[in-house]
Amino acid sequence: MPDALPHIVILGGGFGGLAATRALAGARARITLVDRHNHHLFQPLLYQVATAGLAAPSIAAPLRQILRRQRNVTVLMDEATGIDLANRRVQLHRERLDYDWLVVATGATHAYFGHGDWAADAPGLKSLDDALAIRRRVLTAFERAEQEDGASRQAWLNFVVVGAGATGVELAGTLAEIARRTLAGEFRRAQPSAANILLVEAGPRVLAAFDPVLSAKAQRQLERLGVQVRLGQAVTAVDDQGVTLGDERIAARTVLWAAGVAASPLGRALDAPLDRAGRVLVQPDLSLPGHPEVFVVGDLASVMQDGRPVPGVAPAAKQMGGHVGGLLAACLRGDRRPRPFRYRDAGSLATIGRMAAVAQFGRLRLSGLFAWWVWLGAHIWFLIGFRNRLVVMLDWAMAYWTQARHARIITGRDQPGDDARDR
Amino acid sequence: MPDALPHIVILGGGFGGLAATRALAGARARITLVDRHNHHLFQPLLYQVATAGLAAPSIAAPLRQILRRQRNVTVLMDEATGIDLANRRVQLHRERLDYDWLVVATGATHAYFGHGDWAADAPGLKSLDDALAIRRRVLTAFERAEQEDGASRQAWLNFVVVGAGATGVELAGTLAEIARRTLAGEFRRAQPSAANILLVEAGPRVLAAFDPVLSAKAQRQLERLGVQVRLGQAVTAVDDQGVTLGDERIAARTVLWAAGVAASPLGRALDAPLDRAGRVLVQPDLSLPGHPEVFVVGDLASVMQDGRPVPGVAPAAKQMGGHVGGLLAACLRGDRRPRPFRYRDAGSLATIGRMAAVAQFGRLRLSGLFAWWVWLGAHIWFLIGFRNRLVVMLDWAMAYWTQARHARIITGRDQPGDDARDR
Repeated sequence: MPDALPHIVILGGGFGGLAATRALAGARARITLVDRHNHHLFQPLLYQVATAGLAAPSIAAPLRQILRRQRNVTVLMDEATGIDLANRRVQLHRERLDYDWLVVATGATHAYFGHGDWAADAPGLKSLDDALAIRRRVLTAFERAEQEDGASRQAWLNFVVVGAGATGVELAGTLAEIARRTLAGEFRRAQPSAANILLVEAGPRVLAAFDPVLSAKAQRQLERLGVQVRLGQAVTAVDDQGVTLGDERIAARTVLWAAGVAASPLGRALDAPLDRAGRVLVQPDLSLPGHPEVFVVGDLASVMQDGRPVPGVAPAAKQMGGHVGGLLAACLRGDRRPRPFRYRDAGSLATIGRMAAVAQFGRLRLSGLFAWWVWLGAHIWFLIGFRNRLVVMLDWAMAYWTQARHARIITGRDQPGDDARDR
Repeated sequence: MPDALPHIVILGGGFGGLAATRALAGARARITLVDRHNHHLFQPLLYQVATAGLAAPSIAAPLRQILRRQRNVTVLMDEATGIDLANRRVQLHRERLDYDWLVVATGATHAYFGHGDWAADAPGLKSLDDALAIRRRVLTAFERAEQEDGASRQAWLNFVVVGAGATGVELAGTLAEIARRTLAGEFRRAQPSAANILLVEAGPRVLAAFDPVLSAKAQRQLERLGVQVRLGQAVTAVDDQGVTLGDERIAARTVLWAAGVAASPLGRALDAPLDRAGRVLVQPDLSLPGHPEVFVVGDLASVMQDGRPVPGVAPAAKQMGGHVGGLLAACLRGDRRPRPFRYRDAGSLATIGRMAAVAQFGRLRLSGLFAWWVWLGAHIWFLIGFRNRLVVMLDWAMAYWTQARHARIITGRDQPGDDARDR
């Protein structure tokens, strides 16, 4: 590939960055895709890895394998540490890249609202490493309960999930199923069914992004699974022994964090106005104000449409990436019209347990078993790679019939006597 | 279960300990099985996890799930730190167990021959964590090569495997296939096919446990895959930049260790004579000299038969565990005859690459494609659990046709800028 071709640097290989890259297939440009991981991750199913239903490789595929045949792309496993807008340069850990166009798609993570020190005791769920760490904690908690008595045992059987968005609801519902069904009959001293799963939400309802009718249905489905839902309660303290909700202290050795949104810190390097969560306020065509050669897509972009924010979900990121990729492809052909981005809402889905979900498509509202089948089909369909789809289907078919969870493997733990590493 | 029943403590849930536990199904005894991991591991396929062919959960199953229906067993995820033979007590990290009978099956690991400090730069392969660490190093090495030039790049493309037993041969052969086939066409700057795979063995031939004719065939198959086999050469130094073989320095950022045998340190707590590798010299019935209530099975036991040592392989461990389990079951029925253990050699198998293996069954010697089919069938058959068999078959069928390796996921690495953690 001659160096004279324009150079497009894309930061982030999630849904947004990958869609932008793919939309540039065949374009006369050099494209460099940079991601800190070697894989694209199907984030909507990450909670299944965290709860031992799926193996990590089932929801991830190497970026360079996905893009093997797209010859204009170079994939680098590295991370941007700074952006020099004036000189059009990106600094990585191991090299520096000059760009003609830049697409920033480094996403967002959860927010501890100024309590970053809670992260060690209340891990969040964004990467495969997060999921494996949560899997280790959850499975280890039941193992420890088997070797403790009384209140110490119960503290290992108490689980608190903070935040009742889709991830929090999915985690809490699955934890309840693990305790009541998967582990039933496998312990001789402790009773996994004595586990308490507490879902804490500061707002007035679960799944706030959905219609209030569906929020109420989701809450009933959670409660039927045995999850205690606490609405309008904010966590005021977290440590390795539990959480505090206002005046109430709850002993729980396992606390999982699924609240808030904090955009990638790279947004601050862009010299542009940010919203409260650190998302970049982009132009209608997703470019950076004052820098038509820089675009921001996915969860890092703050986009208003018809007076409402475009949600931070996978389909929106894909659409933004595709939009910018298409726009750049047109530019490379000499067609430089600005095109505003327009989000097409394909509907929202959230699952609650083994056979329940809620879904809304435009004015259509679904809940219960039928919504679950829709959820299942959609998620398997959008999983990258035929093999992954097949294995995930197989895992779920087996899990559905046997109630087992095949990835119940504790890894990343060398010293069983070391409490700090156990956690 | 009344406490008055005799208590059998089994340390280790590998092939030996699990076979002993299962042989006691229905016995009138309390059985406590202790393992530092929550899972039984199908070790013969561990190299496939290390080389990204299989996901970790595909070759592991939770011990308490396997033993769910065996109501006389309590499974504890813990580790023995000491054994008090006089008072018949085992100290774990979190509790103390009194026993009437004790079965020690804590296995063996690789040996660095007095150079324990090499472990950080030349990791071995015994647990799932080891396999995931090796997978991370191997995949990361190719990623780093893409961002380096000249000699630095080549050092990331040089791989040294120390020890040419079954594990070393399997690792080296698979690394060669990854470099030549799996990654072909996926890098834009580096050439994965420029990788050098060096298999270093201090002894005079590869697969020393096999017939010399098969050793020679295995070596030719390795060389056909592009592996450089160095026989009669011992490693004299290892650091994070490479290895030294006598006078020769080899730059290699990835060194894997598959040499030597060091028995579990628990053997030293047994107050019995040990062999050079630290294995316990047991009585013909596998009991401890002077302690008929204590048995040692699997890789920790040193057993001579017809003037030759019983090999440290999975079938031998299974047979020893089954023998001791059966012996204790007979004791519990009041039949206390001593029964000497007798190893039945079911044959040996080792695989070299995608379509080659060597096998020997008594006087029968096989090599090449047919041996590979035998190897494949045997390994899938003995994998625990129907689901695992199915998924492994699916993975292999896909890998066979596409040459892809589906578990090419780098995990356990949070800071891509941190060289120490990259490695």
